[in-house]
Amino acid sequence: MAGLVLGSPLLAALLGDADLEPLLDEAAELSAMVRFEAALAAAAAEHGVIPAAAGEAIEAALAAFAPDGAALVEAAARDGVVVPELVSQLRAGVGAPHARHLHVGATSQDVIDTALVLRLGPMLVHIDRRLEAIGKAFAALDTRFGTCSLTGVTRMQPAVKILVGDRLRSWAAPLERHRRRLEALQPELLVVQFGGPAGTLAALGPAAEAVRRSLAARLGLADAPQWHSQRDRIAALGSVLAGIAGSLGKFGQDVALMAQAGDEIALSGGGGSSAMPHKRNPVAAEMLVALARFAAVQVSGLHQALVHEQERSGAAWTLEWLLLPPLLLATGAATRIAGELAGDVTRLGSP
Amino acid sequence: MAGLVLGSPLLAALLGDADLEPLLDEAAELSAMVRFEAALAAAAAEHGVIPAAAGEAIEAALAAFAPDGAALVEAAARDGVVVPELVSQLRAGVGAPHARHLHVGATSQDVIDTALVLRLGPMLVHIDRRLEAIGKAFAALDTRFGTCSLTGVTRMQPAVKILVGDRLRSWAAPLERHRRRLEALQPELLVVQFGGPAGTLAALGPAAEAVRRSLAARLGLADAPQWHSQRDRIAALGSVLAGIAGSLGKFGQDVALMAQAGDEIALSGGGGSSAMPHKRNPVAAEMLVALARFAAVQVSGLHQALVHEQERSGAAWTLEWLLLPPLLLATGAATRIAGELAGDVTRLGSP
Amino acid sequence: MAGLVLGSPLLAALLGDADLEPLLDEAAELSAMVRFEAALAAAAAEHGVIPAAAGEAIEAALAAFAPDGAALVEAAARDGVVVPELVSQLRAGVGAPHARHLHVGATSQDVIDTALVLRLGPMLVHIDRRLEAIGKAFAALDTRFGTCSLTGVTRMQPAVKILVGDRLRSWAAPLERHRRRLEALQPELLVVQFGGPAGTLAALGPAAEAVRRSLAARLGLADAPQWHSQRDRIAALGSVLAGIAGSLGKFGQDVALMAQAGDEIALSGGGGSSAMPHKRNPVAAEMLVALARFAAVQVSGLHQALVHEQERSGAAWTLEWLLLPPLLLATGAATRIAGELAGDVTRLGSP
Amino acid sequence: MAGLVLGSPLLAALLGDADLEPLLDEAAELSAMVRFEAALAAAAAEHGVIPAAAGEAIEAALAAFAPDGAALVEAAARDGVVVPELVSQLRAGVGAPHARHLHVGATSQDVIDTALVLRLGPMLVHIDRRLEAIGKAFAALDTRFGTCSLTGVTRMQPAVKILVGDRLRSWAAPLERHRRRLEALQPELLVVQFGGPAGTLAALGPAAEAVRRSLAARLGLADAPQWHSQRDRIAALGSVLAGIAGSLGKFGQDVALMAQAGDEIALSGGGGSSAMPHKRNPVAAEMLVALARFAAVQVSGLHQALVHEQERSGAAWTLEWLLLPPLLLATGAATRIAGELAGDVTRLGSP
Repeated sequence: MAGLVLGSPLLAALLGDADLEPLLDEAAELSAMVRFEAALAAAAAEHGVIPAAAGEAIEAALAAFAPDGAALVEAAARDGVVVPELVSQLRAGVGAPHARHLHVGATSQDVIDTALVLRLGPMLVHIDRRLEAIGKAFAALDTRFGTCSLTGVTRMQPAVKILVGDRLRSWAAPLERHRRRLEALQPELLVVQFGGPAGTLAALGPAAEAVRRSLAARLGLADAPQWHSQRDRIAALGSVLAGIAGSLGKFGQDVALMAQAGDEIALSGGGGSSAMPHKRNPVAAEMLVALARFAAVQVSGLHQALVHEQERSGAAWTLEWLLLPPLLLATGAATRIAGELAGDVTRLGSP
Repeated sequence: MAGLVLGSPLLAALLGDADLEPLLDEAAELSAMVRFEAALAAAAAEHGVIPAAAGEAIEAALAAFAPDGAALVEAAARDGVVVPELVSQLRAGVGAPHARHLHVGATSQDVIDTALVLRLGPMLVHIDRRLEAIGKAFAALDTRFGTCSLTGVTRMQPAVKILVGDRLRSWAAPLERHRRRLEALQPELLVVQFGGPAGTLAALGPAAEAVRRSLAARLGLADAPQWHSQRDRIAALGSVLAGIAGSLGKFGQDVALMAQAGDEIALSGGGGSSAMPHKRNPVAAEMLVALARFAAVQVSGLHQALVHEQERSGAAWTLEWLLLPPLLLATGAATRIAGELAGDVTRLGSP
Repeated sequence: MAGLVLGSPLLAALLGDADLEPLLDEAAELSAMVRFEAALAAAAAEHGVIPAAAGEAIEAALAAFAPDGAALVEAAARDGVVVPELVSQLRAGVGAPHARHLHVGATSQDVIDTALVLRLGPMLVHIDRRLEAIGKAFAALDTRFGTCSLTGVTRMQPAVKILVGDRLRSWAAPLERHRRRLEALQPELLVVQFGGPAGTLAALGPAAEAVRRSLAARLGLADAPQWHSQRDRIAALGSVLAGIAGSLGKFGQDVALMAQAGDEIALSGGGGSSAMPHKRNPVAAEMLVALARFAAVQVSGLHQALVHEQERSGAAWTLEWLLLPPLLLATGAATRIAGELAGDVTRLGSP
Repeated sequence: MAGLVLGSPLLAALLGDADLEPLLDEAAELSAMVRFEAALAAAAAEHGVIPAAAGEAIEAALAAFAPDGAALVEAAARDGVVVPELVSQLRAGVGAPHARHLHVGATSQDVIDTALVLRLGPMLVHIDRRLEAIGKAFAALDTRFGTCSLTGVTRMQPAVKILVGDRLRSWAAPLERHRRRLEALQPELLVVQFGGPAGTLAALGPAAEAVRRSLAARLGLADAPQWHSQRDRIAALGSVLAGIAGSLGKFGQDVALMAQAGDEIALSGGGGSSAMPHKRNPVAAEMLVALARFAAVQVSGLHQALVHEQERSGAAWTLEWLLLPPLLLATGAATRIAGELAGDVTRLGSP
């Protein structure tokens, strides 16, 4: 279930990420849910859990499914999750006699968590590519200005001369480590969630694990035992995201301080002022600091959500829905803005 | 500038507040900004800072103003604030020779902070009324069930028998205190922000304070010296909001635990399950816990934003934009849901 | 129960508050607990709930009580609270036949929460006096340098000239508001907690409220119905503390930025460097920023603790024990350091 | 610099970790700092940066060094770091003519960060062993009770029957993942920090990297370029720690809820009550929840500290000192308590 996103077009223009938003919106979420149900029907049919004809009929019907959005909204408010109503609508689309085989063995959380994971995959690829591009931009700046001189500043006081390349490396090296963290995260994160009402897949009998493996494969995900009450992967994702935003916030803070000092950096672009038209504000640098601090706030809540009681916590799970989409978006926006800012640098240090 | 709101219709249906959302959206924000500029022109004309004809012309033009939204969005992304472009559009609407008198002595932060305060007033009234209604619902439950018996539970263990009224008072009493905190907050919070580029109102000369007083009065706000880099009022607001959501989260947690124990509460409503159609989930109670924890997370960031450097921090100010609207909305939603949940209680305790 | 304090003498020297620490340590806590038990015995005897002779014997024995610390430590680890063992030791000190009248009608939480409140009173007075002193120091700086010129800086860019007095007011005005918040907080916070095992004072019969009133009066606290599961006062305290630390963090951040700019402030003192003996670091200014951010982190947890389930949550209550003492100490340290830093300013702005 | 630790013996007994505390205290920190200086002298001598005789003299003198604690405390308060005074004392201990070769090329941050890393190594080993032991305890419970029946609970409502083994796996599986995260963290975390005043090792000339490699090897650490302003490793460490505490908090929450339900778990031990001597509180379970929420709060601040400006931020670095030691201790305590609690389980589920 997509969560808080930038509701204001003005703020979205400033702090959004037009490449990530389509993966976070409702249409993308519903589409991923339908993919789950179609793949589940196919996997269940493959292993004889439902009739082959049912599997085919469900796949065909779902390919043509158009949700009744108003009914979904009403039901989500009542049930706390959209899945019961969505399943009803899907079953109505399939019709008798196959409808009852849709959603076989599954529960709401299977649908929602797997639909999240399906969209996380391309989002992480996107963030990784942005980090790679920022690294290249820093490398290009190093080529142009790396041997220029800069005043090293420690504890807010001029210390000794350093090279521009020294500071560039302090911006670039963490991004390489974050990329490795993203890479290490993916095999454990991009896994199917399929456990049924209480995580035991009891309704599927001996074919349960085979169905789950097939379901995962059909969705391009790795197989894993159900993890519905084990939210450590989500908290680990949040930590990597906040780490990325935080390291980019250091870049932003440094640029803002250099811009204040006045003679060590030159930027194209920069924001206008309503009162002082000549003034160029280092808006992008400030936004990076704001996004870093925002992300550092949200990561706390994703760790609170680890206290996910029993087989399913409505409270802890909903807390994730409120926190993770804005954190993804903020991190995406930070990578976008950092790339733009790195490209706007026209001078660093003194020759 | 309105911030993160519930971007998903599904989530908004569950965790939104249809009464608060119109005050948080972009149209409401722009409208409040235009009100600021109109009142400023009138106040400046009243004190001879701009010609009387200019004041009249500006007021008239602004009454008919329709923004060019696309241009605002583009400019907000560039400038970090929407105000420079908005002022340009407003001036174009006023035309020569009066246009240059619009926004006299003001800066972006004056417009944005005052436009926020203008909308906070009705939002706080709304939240207060909801708290009052929840208190009445608790009182009604006390009348019906107050002398029924309940197992007092301490440290997750049955302790001694208490009365239903005892627990109802533990839910109701904090709400009364929160209402007093809201009341105490308003005189210091609902004040104009008007300081000009660096907070000194230098451009207005000796009439500066008189113009500010008149501006405040025209907007229905109290007068106060500029506070653009003093964000303690915003953090204090955030604390009261998170306090409200937190106390309602305790109510929700108690209801969820009573529903689990099974025989001490009966609720009408409750959410359905996709796998177990007979099951009624205490969705509202869980949402209250989720919103309480969400609010507790956000309040941290509003306190981080107190480190608002120098005369204006783009980073700290933008951080507020990202945090305050969702916190307002979450608190509003908590009051809505708590009222509904209190109304859904059909039995409490044992006779 | 006193919580996390600065365990390292090195860090305590830098970030501690020697005036607050004695109120936070274990001896002070145990002493306040013993005061509670003595006052309770006296109040219960006054209203005939226990024999007059028992009241006198308890008061006399407690005046001479010396705890067996090792046994307290062992029991605290076992019971989660120190009170059961403390009550045993106190009863052993009183001896038969009066011992059984000690702790009449009370429970652990009554003792611990009231012992906290007893120590909060002088702590808040102390913090308030420090804020008053900082305000006077700012006023003195205003007298000396208020009309000097300073470059107003908005969004990390030089904006327009302001007066030193303008910036001093942005530091001082929030402190006045924080003092008023402290003042408003005290009547609701400095109240007795007395409710017995489940908050109903059932064991005391009709004299219950009279005993509570007398207990409160004997302890110099206001009377109030039990609030053991209503933690809004503690969260509100945390918010005021974090607000104070946050506003002082803005002062620190401004000083650090002025020190970096180099010519707008002169400070006596400042820290040495192991590598660059000539360098003077604005250590106090940096510590204020660190303490502000630390306090902003902790305040989140005190709001999480509002979700205090049922009649007593061991988890939520213990979370407060972990968070509140460091937050009190950090705020105290911030007021100490800010006062020292304000006194170290030897020049501000340009004539 | 060791930070906030459990100042109260009572609280330390309940929430401390006697195995980790010796690694967090001041003596351990100073000892690690002296190790750094001795190894640096040896490495510098090895590569001809200082005379061989100086290297030997320094190593010999440092082996016998006893700090003047009072002077260190006084200096730490003044300088913001203890290193300048420590270096003075060490040089006094070495005496002319070799003293000036001590601390060659180094700065305070090299000493403090490396001294932290030196102690993190054994702390992480310790936490990992505890996790392994908890996993074994869960496996033993699975052997005894895994096929017993338990009511699966979703959204605080009884759902379907599960096996005890199902729930045990939801507790155990995250711990295995956390162990892998700890393992992945160590190669990047357990690295030397050596950069000199501005990170460039300029004072050491062409031998700089060779000296750093030798220094690392002598300390049993991996070599790495300086990372003094790149704090992503510290934030990543904090995330893993909070993840561990969070997953153990879920175990605690489940046990507390099972203990409340009353018939699905039996525990030996449990805490006493001052008012109801017959009552056994699930203290350990509650402590796990409290520690999880505490850790989730602190991790936010370690991410705030990523905005570490320029070559060294006194503010951001000090914030780490305040946050990391309590987080390490809380995580250690959570592993201790979880191990004890797992061992206290005498029955799970129904046969």
